[in-house]
Amino acid sequence: MSDAPTQLTSVAALVEQRLERLFEDERNEWAAVDSRLVEAIDELERIAMGGKRLRAGYCYWAWLGASGGSEVGDLPNDLDIIDACASFELLQAFALIHDDIMDDADMRRSERTIHVEQAERLEKESWRGEARRYGEGVALLVGDLSHVYADQLIGNGSDQTRSLWDRLRIELNLGQYLDMRSAAAAELDRETATRVATFKSAPYTIVRPLQLGASVAGPVSPELVEQLARYGTPAGQAFQLRDDLLGVLGNESRAGKPVGNDLREGKPTELVAVALERADDAQKRVLDGIGMPDLGADQTAAIIEILHATGAVDEIEMRIEKLIRDATVVADALPFDQRVRETLTVFAVYVAARHH
Amino acid sequence: MSDAPTQLTSVAALVEQRLERLFEDERNEWAAVDSRLVEAIDELERIAMGGKRLRAGYCYWAWLGASGGSEVGDLPNDLDIIDACASFELLQAFALIHDDIMDDADMRRSERTIHVEQAERLEKESWRGEARRYGEGVALLVGDLSHVYADQLIGNGSDQTRSLWDRLRIELNLGQYLDMRSAAAAELDRETATRVATFKSAPYTIVRPLQLGASVAGPVSPELVEQLARYGTPAGQAFQLRDDLLGVLGNESRAGKPVGNDLREGKPTELVAVALERADDAQKRVLDGIGMPDLGADQTAAIIEILHATGAVDEIEMRIEKLIRDATVVADALPFDQRVRETLTVFAVYVAARHH
Repeated sequence: MSDAPTQLTSVAALVEQRLERLFEDERNEWAAVDSRLVEAIDELERIAMGGKRLRAGYCYWAWLGASGGSEVGDLPNDLDIIDACASFELLQAFALIHDDIMDDADMRRSERTIHVEQAERLEKESWRGEARRYGEGVALLVGDLSHVYADQLIGNGSDQTRSLWDRLRIELNLGQYLDMRSAAAAELDRETATRVATFKSAPYTIVRPLQLGASVAGPVSPELVEQLARYGTPAGQAFQLRDDLLGVLGNESRAGKPVGNDLREGKPTELVAVALERADDAQKRVLDGIGMPDLGADQTAAIIEILHATGAVDEIEMRIEKLIRDATVVADALPFDQRVRETLTVFAVYVAARHH
Repeated sequence: MSDAPTQLTSVAALVEQRLERLFEDERNEWAAVDSRLVEAIDELERIAMGGKRLRAGYCYWAWLGASGGSEVGDLPNDLDIIDACASFELLQAFALIHDDIMDDADMRRSERTIHVEQAERLEKESWRGEARRYGEGVALLVGDLSHVYADQLIGNGSDQTRSLWDRLRIELNLGQYLDMRSAAAAELDRETATRVATFKSAPYTIVRPLQLGASVAGPVSPELVEQLARYGTPAGQAFQLRDDLLGVLGNESRAGKPVGNDLREGKPTELVAVALERADDAQKRVLDGIGMPDLGADQTAAIIEILHATGAVDEIEMRIEKLIRDATVVADALPFDQRVRETLTVFAVYVAARHH
């Protein structure tokens, strides 16, 4: 199942419209101050458009569920919830732009990353200074700008909405720190990998968007907050495990990243942790190549071979299946209309099975 | 006048306490999840503590003026306004941390900058990856974290408070972009320099802190918003002009930065713009060295000589005096208690005359 479900693409369309309007308004406003400022907004738009809008989708459908709505047909284009959905996608753009600096990634959403594009601009224009520093500086500022716009669209929500919003952004940044630090320190144990998944990926991608979306409809009871977490945590872990598999095994044309990229970066993943636990001494020596920036194609192939041979890939696939079953059981018991519950089941299967 | 006025140091003390409490609470909370996360909070605290707290000072005194308070003696430690003051200082920490990456600065507030410290950590611990990328990545995330905490402390203010907060953050980031881009493109004309000062420095440092502080006391009339801008804009320009002078002429022990640093970076400043306008051809050729990363001590001295010889330094000093006079006239007419009006006059003189 590689195509996004219509329950997601319909929300994505509303979000794209909202973002287009925001960028257009901002361009008009700042062009009047100085035409050069528009470049920063253009760069943001280039990266912010065209995502899968997963977080927006979760945010929207939890709102629809919590507000008692579920009408079949056009989805209601309520300003508050669409703003909240767009906030998540601007926050995601911020995270991706900064992440791409940290990983020195070349491509994002079929576009050249901002830091790469801007470093090249300095050289093309024969401007002064170091190209790398300039490119990364622009990307840093454009990411910061996206963070501000995200916050602006959340606006003066309820105390519960803002507190969820603040919390998820702290989780995101601290989680990124743990991720990067563990990769550098080669702390590739299962506990670290699980911690990154349960404390950064699952909350940021699924749990908080659901809880926050529901809170836009009105105060969310502690029971519902908890139920949404019991759906979102396994679904989010499954999402992360699939992402880990794609980062290592996924083919280049679909993932938009070279095969084995995550192995070179040495990110802590359960996939690698399981393989390390199961490997014999000879296999362990090969796995020691993970995290080496100069990891070659042969070594990458040998590591992938061991990920299969140790049964690590199979174990992760089974874990994903189990997690999705757990999530769908919870989805079915949510106090939402049937169409919303079905959608959350569809989403759980989608995030764990996606091939891109 | 190099020592901060007591009206500023007393606010600074309240802000330091608030920040200490925030960091302590956060450390306690996140240590329970993973002890490694505390490192990111510690790094933030290292840079966030010990500033002059100028923005907090303006925010506080405008609040005191707008709320009709002015009692001599202890300043009221009202939670909402102290939170707002602390927000400005966390936003400043965010801006400084990211700025130091862009400028590759070594020191900040007598501390080693985060990106330098963390790059060295990777080497000391023999961790994997490129030291520069890791150091900058950590600094980037710690800056982002500070941005989130800043937002969190602003909280659910009034619509006016939040709209000022959003606006100033957009101005800050777009202004930084214009600053960096103009330096790279060697666009050192007076118009660009003035634009950076009036559209980034003045709003971010003085105008918005005043307006936002007043808004914490209650709705601020359009007239008062305008009056505060008429005080803050010249005061903020004077602040920027002093900063430009210190960045070029200031001695190393006091400014914490090597003399001529800003010349090497090639930032667009009115000081340089004026010198370029007044220089003859021979002098222009020397000034062309501005923005060259390998600018030597002799060339720096020759440029500084020309800044004096063309009368650019004198012109800027006179501009500062004029701007401060303008600001104090407006301060005196503000609808605030006399003690508040006097404080704003003291602050205007302080920001323009500070020697550090």
